[in-house]
Amino acid sequence: MSLKPATFRAMAAATGEPVGPAFPVHGPADVAAACAAAAEAFPVYRATSLAARATFLETIADEILGIGDALIEAAMTESGLPRARLEGERGRTVSQLRLFADVVRKGAWQQLRIDSALPDRQPLPRPDLRMRMVPLGPVAVFGASNFPLAFSTAGGDTASALAAGCPVVVKGHPAHPQTGDLVAGAIARAVAACGLPAGTFGHVTGPDHALGEALVTDPRIAAVGFTGSRGGGLALLHLAQARPVPIPVYAEMSSINPVLLLPEALKARGPELGTAFVGSLTMGAGQFCTNPGLVLAIAGDGLDAFLEAAADAVAAAPAQTMLTPGICRAYAGGVAALESLPDVEVVARGAPGTPAQGMAALLRTDASAFLAQPAMGHEVFGASSLVVVCADEAELRRVLSGLEGQLTATLHMDQGDLALAQRLLPLLEDKAGRILANGWPTGVEVCHAMVHGGPFPATSDARGTSVGSLAIDRFLRPVCYQNLAAELLPPVLRDESSGDGAPRLIDGSLTL
Amino acid sequence: MSLKPATFRAMAAATGEPVGPAFPVHGPADVAAACAAAAEAFPVYRATSLAARATFLETIADEILGIGDALIEAAMTESGLPRARLEGERGRTVSQLRLFADVVRKGAWQQLRIDSALPDRQPLPRPDLRMRMVPLGPVAVFGASNFPLAFSTAGGDTASALAAGCPVVVKGHPAHPQTGDLVAGAIARAVAACGLPAGTFGHVTGPDHALGEALVTDPRIAAVGFTGSRGGGLALLHLAQARPVPIPVYAEMSSINPVLLLPEALKARGPELGTAFVGSLTMGAGQFCTNPGLVLAIAGDGLDAFLEAAADAVAAAPAQTMLTPGICRAYAGGVAALESLPDVEVVARGAPGTPAQGMAALLRTDASAFLAQPAMGHEVFGASSLVVVCADEAELRRVLSGLEGQLTATLHMDQGDLALAQRLLPLLEDKAGRILANGWPTGVEVCHAMVHGGPFPATSDARGTSVGSLAIDRFLRPVCYQNLAAELLPPVLRDESSGDGAPRLIDGSLTL
Repeated sequence: MSLKPATFRAMAAATGEPVGPAFPVHGPADVAAACAAAAEAFPVYRATSLAARATFLETIADEILGIGDALIEAAMTESGLPRARLEGERGRTVSQLRLFADVVRKGAWQQLRIDSALPDRQPLPRPDLRMRMVPLGPVAVFGASNFPLAFSTAGGDTASALAAGCPVVVKGHPAHPQTGDLVAGAIARAVAACGLPAGTFGHVTGPDHALGEALVTDPRIAAVGFTGSRGGGLALLHLAQARPVPIPVYAEMSSINPVLLLPEALKARGPELGTAFVGSLTMGAGQFCTNPGLVLAIAGDGLDAFLEAAADAVAAAPAQTMLTPGICRAYAGGVAALESLPDVEVVARGAPGTPAQGMAALLRTDASAFLAQPAMGHEVFGASSLVVVCADEAELRRVLSGLEGQLTATLHMDQGDLALAQRLLPLLEDKAGRILANGWPTGVEVCHAMVHGGPFPATSDARGTSVGSLAIDRFLRPVCYQNLAAELLPPVLRDESSGDGAPRLIDGSLTL
Repeated sequence: MSLKPATFRAMAAATGEPVGPAFPVHGPADVAAACAAAAEAFPVYRATSLAARATFLETIADEILGIGDALIEAAMTESGLPRARLEGERGRTVSQLRLFADVVRKGAWQQLRIDSALPDRQPLPRPDLRMRMVPLGPVAVFGASNFPLAFSTAGGDTASALAAGCPVVVKGHPAHPQTGDLVAGAIARAVAACGLPAGTFGHVTGPDHALGEALVTDPRIAAVGFTGSRGGGLALLHLAQARPVPIPVYAEMSSINPVLLLPEALKARGPELGTAFVGSLTMGAGQFCTNPGLVLAIAGDGLDAFLEAAADAVAAAPAQTMLTPGICRAYAGGVAALESLPDVEVVARGAPGTPAQGMAALLRTDASAFLAQPAMGHEVFGASSLVVVCADEAELRRVLSGLEGQLTATLHMDQGDLALAQRLLPLLEDKAGRILANGWPTGVEVCHAMVHGGPFPATSDARGTSVGSLAIDRFLRPVCYQNLAAELLPPVLRDESSGDGAPRLIDGSLTL
């Protein structure tokens, strides 16, 4: 055995060369230590007041901002993403933490319910029953490569789990170890500043899958948050289900985000739609979970104009550095595989670049070919999209019905398309977590009404969202208290309390 | 191939003899037909107005009452349960359907959220975002043997799934086929009376596990509700997880429902507690999910008096007919296995009866023996309980910490036990879905604050409850609408709507 622990370094996205300091390759003992610390912290952390927990989340936000430009520079080098995008991501992450602080303070997430005793009820009296949500326990969060700030160490999963009262152990993404280390340091400083147990937040790092396997199978972990590939998400899901005590896995995995071009919209503004579509397609080198990888159109006026404008925009799109050399290779391979399928026509390719850069790709096929070849419906992670031309509404419905679950479904429509859109809507609701009109799926707002989720395989659990304030619900479970003395009840459930501002369902009536 | 389909009959619980009419043994083709009908009904049923859906639930309740005494008599014969219990169960089932009708009408379960557009926000405008819950799709419900009315064909799972807007396919429990057939007929009449598609409710019957396997693996089924044995629940869970599209399984499986006798309560009223405990233990022949199968006490004053009174009550308890001969054999075997373990002492046995009847059993051991032998913590379905004597609080905590997840945990306590109870409470919250004081776990109120659920293996999914109005949440998922024209939005999410009385979270503020 070596006396010196193994280390690894980041690879610069642009060059594939090692860059930055060395980080530890954690092993099973490190994972066990982090999980033990999280389990020890849990009873203390879950008992924090809502005010204290909210302040903690805000302190994390402040500490992340306090890192300053070093964070942006590390993320730029490691991810290849440009400064403006990463500054935007940092702003999003910070406001996400502040949103959850506000959610925690308002307290509605506790879902307080009181059913009063009915001592005189016949044939049997009703006892006093009160309910609230409690946190599940320590949560394992897997950092995502594609949003090194917004979906990684202090991203939506971490923020929502901490808001719920769950300690978090993050498995840092090996594609951005320095970015992750800086953010983990900020969280650790917030933990210390707020006087919380050190195990409230843990961070393990290393390049191998074994690390994540050890984390998901640790008996102290109570739930998992993950954003990444379908293969990775399914592997974690299967590990979690095979545990002696199975646990929930919230894996956001795979989506091609169909964009429907309805006839009147296409007729009215095919060229504008084509240009705008490519803006969404190539955003962030196409490395959004909500990247529009599938366009569905009914053959008719405007489709050629749409394709021409989109082809021009794709041809003019510069190659972009992808997150890792591996992702770039997988992208090139995915496009090549699509191109090689029968009845697929290449409409346009973007400009070539360095070996680390991805070239945008626009392909075209028809509905019958798409229906016959399920491989056409698989996600290609990057700026590639397939236009599927349908003969009529019936064929469009068949294509939609055959799709797997999606994060989003987009309608481009005019007033004259309304009846068609109304007919399609129930099907879209069954297929996707978010339905949008006359926009593009690549922006995911952090707010109360957002759903970044959807039926399998978009996620492993369609009952949740990984973005927006509803994400907190994933890490909670209900507990009922029957005839407990007031001293034993959580203060917000006592008679003399008004819920500290949280709504309460009292005898079936919601009381603010 | 036989021209005449196979049939099976009920067995009278008291005699094991065939009784009543013959019922069809459904096969894979019948399951597929029921699921296809449910899938076809889904878009129509989910689009019903809340008023229409509520009326449907109330019509089911009326139709069940309309069956009259034939239902009670069939259930008595098939289950061996007495008339008063079954009349109570019918009343519970009917009021459960009416509760869900009220819940559906009030609409809070839709979790409506609106985040208004912010067109002038910098650096980017915010789109208009609205959210609601939608039903998952057709739900498979497995009837439970132990509550032929309240947890079976039209029980909590069926009522909550229908309330959510999901068609239901019930696999009738083979221990009470006539009871199930009568109730299924009542639901089918309600479906017809309300003008709903016939596939809104399906019912398949037969004695073999293959039927349930076919149901859970049918691609049109979107979720599963189950109450029964740990083995049965895990088998369904594994089938559901191995599907190409995994689905949620809400299996309520196994719980020994620890009852903690705290020192001051024991000192003050050991004998009364002993007698009352046996009343809960022997209720319904011990065939409650919440039967108190484990008693934890710290050695001290009152324990001997508790044991003496409990022993007397157990010895005086008449044998009771169990639900099926198989359950009766399993109970006898489970008690014999417990008795044969080292350091287990038989405190008392109930009176002997017929071969179809179970004899109550009270056993005793100490904490070190319990901790050393995990088999002592497994559920024995029936009127058997094990008293574990702990030397002190530390040992009590060790025993509690080692327990699996539970439906309930009960505290018997006086004012002088308050500090101890406060120290134990966080641990109990981690272990159980319901914590009760100075009562017995065997009553499960149907109301808003009830949680009949808990950590694994009490259930396969601690995030839900199978009793009470919160049960509806298990069959819902969120959908977000971004920038949709008002005509495309669900009416309750439109600007001019007030939510039809349902609360809405508008820009983060709850609006009634």
